[in-house]
Amino acid sequence: MIDLHLIGIGTGNPDHLTRAAEAAMRAADLILLPRKRADTADLYNLRRALCDAVLTPNTRVVAFDLPVRDAAAGYLTGVRAWHAAIADAWATQIATHLPGGGRLALLVWGDPSLYDSTLRIAARLRAGGLELRVTVVPGITSLQALTAAHAIPLNDLGAPVLITTGRQLATRGWPTDATTVAVMLDGEGAFAKLDPTDTQIWWSAYLGMPQQALLAGPLAETGPAILARRSELRADHGWIMDCYLLRRTPA
Amino acid sequence: MIDLHLIGIGTGNPDHLTRAAEAAMRAADLILLPRKRADTADLYNLRRALCDAVLTPNTRVVAFDLPVRDAAAGYLTGVRAWHAAIADAWATQIATHLPGGGRLALLVWGDPSLYDSTLRIAARLRAGGLELRVTVVPGITSLQALTAAHAIPLNDLGAPVLITTGRQLATRGWPTDATTVAVMLDGEGAFAKLDPTDTQIWWSAYLGMPQQALLAGPLAETGPAILARRSELRADHGWIMDCYLLRRTPA
Repeated sequence: MIDLHLIGIGTGNPDHLTRAAEAAMRAADLILLPRKRADTADLYNLRRALCDAVLTPNTRVVAFDLPVRDAAAGYLTGVRAWHAAIADAWATQIATHLPGGGRLALLVWGDPSLYDSTLRIAARLRAGGLELRVTVVPGITSLQALTAAHAIPLNDLGAPVLITTGRQLATRGWPTDATTVAVMLDGEGAFAKLDPTDTQIWWSAYLGMPQQALLAGPLAETGPAILARRSELRADHGWIMDCYLLRRTPA
Repeated sequence: MIDLHLIGIGTGNPDHLTRAAEAAMRAADLILLPRKRADTADLYNLRRALCDAVLTPNTRVVAFDLPVRDAAAGYLTGVRAWHAAIADAWATQIATHLPGGGRLALLVWGDPSLYDSTLRIAARLRAGGLELRVTVVPGITSLQALTAAHAIPLNDLGAPVLITTGRQLATRGWPTDATTVAVMLDGEGAFAKLDPTDTQIWWSAYLGMPQQALLAGPLAETGPAILARRSELRADHGWIMDCYLLRRTPA
């Protein structure tokens, strides 16, 4: 029996850890840390530093190589095949390091509920016959870190908010149900393709990290500034994690 | 100069406090705790208990009576008048307890960005001439606590999510932009008026508290069970805070 704890760690800044997250990290028999390609070594190192800040030497921390997603496959097909490969990689680590069962923890950026795949990968392992109990420890999402950094509300008074991805925004355009749109996972700058009339943007990259960057203003002027800043930062650091909020004056 | 810290405290369970929230509470010269009508004394007591769990006796904690919203006024008009009255109440407390300025903290349920008025009330004070610097400390929202308690993702794979209120859902019906809808501030059970076909609901009340209640299942059967449970719980406790997630199978 594997007692799996999916721990939301927020932005990677130890200040965003909750008491429950710290306790769950310390109570684990094994923490698995995914390692991606070399240019995202920063992200691996951040999780490693978080472990060093929180754990006693009793907790075993094991790094494993995360399979690479096939970008040539269709999006959903590629993601599903990737999840299956990650589930296999977890199963191998579990068989090696927790053969008799025990308490396993995974550290999830932000919160395990929001644009994260660990719950789906755990469901695959369970469907594959592994006896697995899943506990989720909520964490601060990048959207809360974004609105906190800008000191703005997510929603207008009593009004809805659509949370979506860059891919969806680029495909579907501005939604009909909300005048506020929070966008994650946008590698391509989908905001640049919108009509910028009466639209404000609040953007941030590397939230909670020393290199945190913030820009905000009318989309018409601020949009191009963000695109320029993004490519500079990506070139400097080798990777970027960012998100943004768009708000349109109601008609 | 008032250095105002709006601190997201999550659900009121000290386990949901972040390190940054604890540090901001301890660094305050004054923490103001709003007190509402007698039947919500539980909520006042929860914040009070959180202060007792975190603070040393050096921090001054002052309770003040929160003005009551005029439910007879139109919704937005009533809310705006209420915010103005709360801003006046803050100003009185500040003049009394921090006449020379200092560091003031307010403890916000969940996160200050999401369906909370403290940022708007602070903006009113600043517009009224108070010299005010605002810092936001993000907290775990009830939506993250909800999805964690049910161990479910907020979004379908790569898909959008609409966050909205019971009032909006009741007025506008099911949105066109999302097959997942997260609903807060629903005193009336707006889910009961939806077509329940192919729709699942995950509901919780008193998230993170000892009396936490969870129900989930197909809306057709689970909706009526939630309505019944809600009124029992409200009668027992004198108040209820709940939220829910609805997911419809894409057509």
